[in-house]
Amino acid sequence: MNNDNPWQRFQKQSCMSVEMDLRLDYSRMIIDNAAFDRMMKPIADALDAMRKLEAGAIANPDENRMVGHYWLRAPQLAPTAEIRREIESSIQSVKRFSREVLDGLIRPEGGDEFLVVLVVGIGGSALGPQFVSDALGTDEDPMIVRFIDNTDPEGIDRVLAELDELLPQTLTIVVSKSGTTIETRNGMLEVAAAYKKAGLNFGKHAIAVTCEGSSLQHIAVAEKWLHVFPMWDWVGGRTSVLSAAGLLPLALQGIDIDALLSGARGCDIATRLNDIRKNPAAMMSLIWHQAGDGHGRRNMVVLPYRDRLVLFGRYLQQLVMESLGKSKDRAGNPTPQGLTVFGNKGSTDQHAFVQQLRDGPDDFFVVFLETLHDRNGLSMVVEENVTTGDYLHHFLYGTRDALTESGKRSMTLTLDELNARSVGVLIALFERAVGLYAELINVNAYHQPGVEAGKKAAANYVALQHVAVAHLESHRDLPVDCEAIALAIGQPEAAEAVYHILEHAAANPDHGVIRVAGPTRFADTFYVPRESKKS
Amino acid sequence: MNNDNPWQRFQKQSCMSVEMDLRLDYSRMIIDNAAFDRMMKPIADALDAMRKLEAGAIANPDENRMVGHYWLRAPQLAPTAEIRREIESSIQSVKRFSREVLDGLIRPEGGDEFLVVLVVGIGGSALGPQFVSDALGTDEDPMIVRFIDNTDPEGIDRVLAELDELLPQTLTIVVSKSGTTIETRNGMLEVAAAYKKAGLNFGKHAIAVTCEGSSLQHIAVAEKWLHVFPMWDWVGGRTSVLSAAGLLPLALQGIDIDALLSGARGCDIATRLNDIRKNPAAMMSLIWHQAGDGHGRRNMVVLPYRDRLVLFGRYLQQLVMESLGKSKDRAGNPTPQGLTVFGNKGSTDQHAFVQQLRDGPDDFFVVFLETLHDRNGLSMVVEENVTTGDYLHHFLYGTRDALTESGKRSMTLTLDELNARSVGVLIALFERAVGLYAELINVNAYHQPGVEAGKKAAANYVALQHVAVAHLESHRDLPVDCEAIALAIGQPEAAEAVYHILEHAAANPDHGVIRVAGPTRFADTFYVPRESKKS
Repeated sequence: MNNDNPWQRFQKQSCMSVEMDLRLDYSRMIIDNAAFDRMMKPIADALDAMRKLEAGAIANPDENRMVGHYWLRAPQLAPTAEIRREIESSIQSVKRFSREVLDGLIRPEGGDEFLVVLVVGIGGSALGPQFVSDALGTDEDPMIVRFIDNTDPEGIDRVLAELDELLPQTLTIVVSKSGTTIETRNGMLEVAAAYKKAGLNFGKHAIAVTCEGSSLQHIAVAEKWLHVFPMWDWVGGRTSVLSAAGLLPLALQGIDIDALLSGARGCDIATRLNDIRKNPAAMMSLIWHQAGDGHGRRNMVVLPYRDRLVLFGRYLQQLVMESLGKSKDRAGNPTPQGLTVFGNKGSTDQHAFVQQLRDGPDDFFVVFLETLHDRNGLSMVVEENVTTGDYLHHFLYGTRDALTESGKRSMTLTLDELNARSVGVLIALFERAVGLYAELINVNAYHQPGVEAGKKAAANYVALQHVAVAHLESHRDLPVDCEAIALAIGQPEAAEAVYHILEHAAANPDHGVIRVAGPTRFADTFYVPRESKKS
Repeated sequence: MNNDNPWQRFQKQSCMSVEMDLRLDYSRMIIDNAAFDRMMKPIADALDAMRKLEAGAIANPDENRMVGHYWLRAPQLAPTAEIRREIESSIQSVKRFSREVLDGLIRPEGGDEFLVVLVVGIGGSALGPQFVSDALGTDEDPMIVRFIDNTDPEGIDRVLAELDELLPQTLTIVVSKSGTTIETRNGMLEVAAAYKKAGLNFGKHAIAVTCEGSSLQHIAVAEKWLHVFPMWDWVGGRTSVLSAAGLLPLALQGIDIDALLSGARGCDIATRLNDIRKNPAAMMSLIWHQAGDGHGRRNMVVLPYRDRLVLFGRYLQQLVMESLGKSKDRAGNPTPQGLTVFGNKGSTDQHAFVQQLRDGPDDFFVVFLETLHDRNGLSMVVEENVTTGDYLHHFLYGTRDALTESGKRSMTLTLDELNARSVGVLIALFERAVGLYAELINVNAYHQPGVEAGKKAAANYVALQHVAVAHLESHRDLPVDCEAIALAIGQPEAAEAVYHILEHAAANPDHGVIRVAGPTRFADTFYVPRESKKS
């Protein structure tokens, strides 16, 4: 801060994008202006790099890919006429298809009309659509949207039980670029089995969103699914919400996808500005950089004061943390980077963790987010001349003052209204801020090598389960402890993993594994009885 | 770590509470055993302090209050016969009342039966019940439960629109200890207005959960509400889920509250143990302490591998951060403390932020949480001999290995099954770990002075709005800028606050404030037209 009064500081440290109805007030961030000035060259370079990226450079060298999510809302910017045509035709076919479903021209077999959209997808194929669907959904939506975003059997059962008799009128969209994402594959198999059990043809209720040539495309074609919408290798999962992965379920829900795309397109224009102080994405990336000393040393707490935006923080967790959380810079130097994101909604979170923000360690900054329009029509007066919505507003600014008072940082984003257009603005704003910040810290924002490590390690458990259960099956009725099993299968170092695998197997009926209590839990033995049939 | 192989380390660094079916594996936490040994006296003292707290000591000296949430599940431990009777009678009346509602003995006026529970509450009055309701709800619940947990007009509209024609069969529970929590008061007024608009008597659909003598109790008595259930000053909001605040909606939902209470009671017994290595709450508090250098320097990432537990992290955010996020220790020394919590669910979060956990900064530890039982009945085989649930399990352990490999810390909590009893265990486990940890760092875990600061600051905005709007009303049709208004009302330093207040007012019809564009947004002027009627 400096000696200006709040009013002067607010005017100097605001970045207003009038066309976008978007205001960024960073006057409560404790700005070091000299440090900002030193960043003018790096941020100009970052904007340059983004220009190259948007022009089709290989911005994700590890995977030899272009990065094209900005083209999704401005196909004319695509680097080739073919890509442009593909995007345009994808948007047109999403619109046509969803209109035909909503008009009852595309119907379920034997059924009346489709009433439910069930999206099977995980990560970027779920978080973006979930966020927008919840932010813009109303009780008058023509279709309701549900998600299966995990391989939790019980979680899948729960979604299917909720749909229950609506299954015949449920349109399932399976979203996976490669078709090899295990959670999505499992969800798809479970859902297909549910249709089958209900005497329904899954293919006549199914749509795929996937890349050309993927295993999912092969299945969809072979089983004659209703439609296959394209994905492209130049769209990352976490920036795919404005591809068919998001547009299709959102259009079916009745959301104005043109407004969503136009909000994002407009924000892209506003955030390409070379005049840094007038470019909210550039300013945001500089502010993040300064607040975390260029190493993400402060958590970013996202507090939208609007119930509909409760999933925004969760959406940003992926966009920001998966993009920026890297072990090496692009030159290969080991420099762990990241920017931790969490937060739900205000003023609710004031009664949860704001106590720590106000009184605890200075290890965060808040992104307050307000949308000025409170509700349709007049609001309720809860005290003389004060409405419910006045209170929501005043709680935001009150909490902000309380944080300032205790030396804590915050910035405030203001939008006039929460609608499809402004949600598009928010998506584009943070996408570009992340891209620019990645340039400032010189990391590849478009790959996720660390995710692979967990998948590979999980595959080890799958393989080990096969061997361990096979061992028990070939020595039926003979209880053995995990150490002995690990030895017997020639993997003595895997005793712990065998323990976890068999503990889980024995807690479920699928593999016929029985657990016998030993003197300690670790010495418990496991066997498969002679009469057990394999799952 | 040390030179033990994983199997040996796992056996040495596990804490098993067999009666509770609860296992805590901290073998992946990078434990310094010598540092642990040095903490044996402090943790013994902490257990001692908890004994005094449970015996009725004034554990919250700032507010001169006892801390009695442990008595809620073991009334015989209450320090006085009166408190014991009050708890027992409260549980009995929750059971009787909910049985009578579910049996149709208590019915809505003119209606058939109550089908919906609408809880109006915020913070502890919502987060605990929301977590348990979602964790244990099924599609066969006798009543559905919804929450209004904010003062967002649009959020309230949305919940009411969803209920719509079910409003006559909706039982509203207003939860507020004091009755003065603004968000809850506003929610209550909005809901009461909705009943009135539908021609219904709110009081005949309303229940209060509140302290004796509160303003809410007065309203409930005056308006002849269906029932008033007690709260007590010795129960903090964030530990109130096993009081009537949580038990009532949960019992109405059909959840086995006896099992919930018994799980918590059993866990309390298991976590009072003086044998530290066998006490999972004591071990957890020591581990948190060591992982964060006694200053919460690592974030706690909560990853339950179970869709139903997706709200657990949000519940723990409040329990942990509001309890531990303090500016001073109990001696008054300024030492900012806290322990940041976030996380949703696995394996979904693996496709969101696990990339950063694996490759980014070493600034966190993970609490993995697994429940071994996958689903009712056999699971689906998605590959030869591998089920959907096997994959969920293997993703947890695979991700854990991937984190270990990159030098990151994690602990794993294992429960046999997710049910009312085990949810009770989880609640009690973390409540006590937080209590013990607070003793280790010597903070008062039972007050929240920082929350008040935000409320007071919000009240300033309410007062300022009155004055600013009154000024415009007494100078109708005269557009003035914020600086001039601030001057005119004698608060020149408040120009920024006036700007935010009037910007919000002008975006809504309630106060009749009109905004006129100036040369810059900051120079915009505001006025109330002559013909405008006040809201």
